[in-house]
Amino acid sequence: MTTDVRTQTEGPRSKRRVILDAAIDNFGELGFEQSKWATIADQVGIGQTALYHYFESKVHCLLTIMSTELERSLALTRKVIAEHDDHEATLRAAAAAAYQGTPREALQARILLSHQDLLITPRKSKREEAERQAARELVRAVETEWASMLRRGMDAGAFADRDEKQMARLVLGLINSIWRWYRPAGPKSLSQISDDVVEACIRIVT
Amino acid sequence: MTTDVRTQTEGPRSKRRVILDAAIDNFGELGFEQSKWATIADQVGIGQTALYHYFESKVHCLLTIMSTELERSLALTRKVIAEHDDHEATLRAAAAAAYQGTPREALQARILLSHQDLLITPRKSKREEAERQAARELVRAVETEWASMLRRGMDAGAFADRDEKQMARLVLGLINSIWRWYRPAGPKSLSQISDDVVEACIRIVT
Repeated sequence: MTTDVRTQTEGPRSKRRVILDAAIDNFGELGFEQSKWATIADQVGIGQTALYHYFESKVHCLLTIMSTELERSLALTRKVIAEHDDHEATLRAAAAAAYQGTPREALQARILLSHQDLLITPRKSKREEAERQAARELVRAVETEWASMLRRGMDAGAFADRDEKQMARLVLGLINSIWRWYRPAGPKSLSQISDDVVEACIRIVT
Repeated sequence: MTTDVRTQTEGPRSKRRVILDAAIDNFGELGFEQSKWATIADQVGIGQTALYHYFESKVHCLLTIMSTELERSLALTRKVIAEHDDHEATLRAAAAAAYQGTPREALQARILLSHQDLLITPRKSKREEAERQAARELVRAVETEWASMLRRGMDAGAFADRDEKQMARLVLGLINSIWRWYRPAGPKSLSQISDDVVEACIRIVT
């Protein structure tokens, strides 16, 4: 849906990735509302006109970060499912994968969690709306992958037989909830948190 | 911390509650970013100057909704804990209480979940910053109540012995995560969702 615009702005000399990285750092550390679009332009060393070529607004950039994170999450889940046979091992690996990204990907996950309400209402701008629709479809695709994974485990007797869509949402909700309070400088490392969450996911489905 | 301002604006002829209700409906249905402060003023039938007496900005109003919801959640949790003896029954009742509010309280819970990143960064405005500090203290107070409840259950052998602070965050994360996807018009009623979440909470801690 957003492929045309992305192709135009993803050439070898494109600043798209640099802008997104700067935006993730700003939105993740200061919060979206307190981040200034002009500061991001300054950090990237780009004028407002050139910036507009990539993203027409701060919200358009935020929606793009959200759909990028959802794409990453979907690809990771599919990769994990393809690589594992055992149902419990698949769930463990899929849950743990959420915490194995870079620090910037952790910020991106927090930004996604913090702005889900932006996906509720249609946008007036065409480019913003296209990105919002893409993000909504990705949310559904991620939930569907997890529900199918859980259903296969339920059918095989590895997990208790329950509404798999509901269980997928609860497990994903638990996994993503840590981005609300996790801070790199906090007392628990991400790998310790990951172990706790993985075990809790297994207890939820069995 | 915000008591002085609240006392001033909570007299019998105060429009504070009416403004908050209109803001919850707007932020909850359209999303915060798409809600117009002027629309809320119109709906309440109040001029911008009078509105400013209560809330100096849309963000100030949002932070107030967030701390109001946290106060409600803290009071509910304390009430449930005081009313129950059995550890598992306490946890069940505390989890279920999250879903027993009015539809507007459900919107308020969703608004809180969707804007937690606003609590990260200090505000320049004094009134906004006071409300942000109040909200942060309430987040800590809620987590502490839940952690103490779980610790008592762990010590009594009703729950498995784990890091109670971490478990409190995971259980609260799971309970609150439903506001991301729950819609009143959805296929599952809030009471069905409540039953599923309560059982999942019990499985997480045992």
